[in-house]
Amino acid sequence: MTADDLIPFAIRLANAAKSETLRYFRGTALATESKQADFDPVTVADRAAEAAMRAILDAERPEDGILGEEYGAKPSTSGLTWVLDPIDGTRGYISGTPTWGTLIACHDGTKPILGLIDQPYIGERFIGAGPVATMTGPLGARDLKVSRTRALEDAIIFTTFPEVGTKADGAAFHRVAARCKLTRYGMDCYAYALLAAGQIDLVIEAGLEAYDIQAPIAVIEAAGGIVTNWQGDPVDQGGAALAAATPELHAAAMDLLNA
Amino acid sequence: MTADDLIPFAIRLANAAKSETLRYFRGTALATESKQADFDPVTVADRAAEAAMRAILDAERPEDGILGEEYGAKPSTSGLTWVLDPIDGTRGYISGTPTWGTLIACHDGTKPILGLIDQPYIGERFIGAGPVATMTGPLGARDLKVSRTRALEDAIIFTTFPEVGTKADGAAFHRVAARCKLTRYGMDCYAYALLAAGQIDLVIEAGLEAYDIQAPIAVIEAAGGIVTNWQGDPVDQGGAALAAATPELHAAAMDLLNA
Repeated sequence: MTADDLIPFAIRLANAAKSETLRYFRGTALATESKQADFDPVTVADRAAEAAMRAILDAERPEDGILGEEYGAKPSTSGLTWVLDPIDGTRGYISGTPTWGTLIACHDGTKPILGLIDQPYIGERFIGAGPVATMTGPLGARDLKVSRTRALEDAIIFTTFPEVGTKADGAAFHRVAARCKLTRYGMDCYAYALLAAGQIDLVIEAGLEAYDIQAPIAVIEAAGGIVTNWQGDPVDQGGAALAAATPELHAAAMDLLNA
Repeated sequence: MTADDLIPFAIRLANAAKSETLRYFRGTALATESKQADFDPVTVADRAAEAAMRAILDAERPEDGILGEEYGAKPSTSGLTWVLDPIDGTRGYISGTPTWGTLIACHDGTKPILGLIDQPYIGERFIGAGPVATMTGPLGARDLKVSRTRALEDAIIFTTFPEVGTKADGAAFHRVAARCKLTRYGMDCYAYALLAAGQIDLVIEAGLEAYDIQAPIAVIEAAGGIVTNWQGDPVDQGGAALAAATPELHAAAMDLLNA
């Protein structure tokens, strides 16, 4: 059994989550359910999507562990743990932007061996597992391959919020961004997908949880890119992330982040 | 003939532009055409999309004027002028984000009477003309209706770049944003569509051309919202725009912009 053998199962998890996230996106279910005074669509959708994925995992892969944003950790007896963020980018979700995603990763105790970034509204799915790096979407299926950009001066860089994290985090980000060709904001996990697809060259974020970054790590690594923390160490347990298309960009960005 | 009678024709223009913009989006046509050293996909797509729309206009509505981003102005003898931005959000387009759009407006000499915001990759189309305010997209067709948010403290505000325009423009924007519930960036013309759909409450931009804002004006006004410049005057000829869901939000934001 190799990582890519798990892809069909991961797709089934994504499909289960999609039914729940789209039910509440853009107020679709609000007309009836918002009669409850404290109805919060993103919380309801987040929980329903994670519960739907956990139900499949509990039934079909009961020995695998689960780490989910909403319902915490279930220990693994198989060595594999599924790491789930039902709605990454909740502020994007409540704003109606199609830049949030469902993040699904499978971790083998050492690293994420499979990642899936799903954007259900657009109908786009980015998958990385072992030798497989692929996406499906409105234009069909295509392989994922990071760009060959080597110099910051040629790079497009993304982060979600201009403040990034702490004041020091923000200053570090802007030292890198000031050297890049173009800086853009607001894409949530979708920015990692664009990096894997070769559209952009750098993503820098801070304050991440394990479930925010494991799927992006697996997708970007399968597409030939690099994801570490700002010190160059593994970031699969969360923290501040630096994702780059090439080793040259990664090194140049890390130097400036730590300057 | 009323504004909504023009909707089918506007949709044909959008379809013609879509063929050209999607041909070059995400490098689809790069493999062959990028052999030219100076190939710039967004410029090629921008021009091809506008040319496709102008060909239909010249053939079928030769008395109408045209104002396009790429090929300039053709005078009107009918009183109507079509105002075209084939790719609004070129930096989003080159980054692969699905937040750029094709903007099509029809101006009657007084104001834009029809607007269409098209996001071809997602397959979303937002239309406002007279009594019609509607969208079609992945979840089907629905009416557009702005939110009822009245207080800045409850508002979600968008602009594309945190700098907004000049240093003074940026400071003015951030006076408003500091009072809002949530500030997001990076959506290009898609933010206006989200405002018309009732998902967000305020959009503030600066440095706009006529073709950047006329379609958003018509879509948002048809959905019940307000679009003016920062002084409360018409902004259909471009400048700094303030789009709001309600009169109360519009007034509160304008006070802070001019504080």
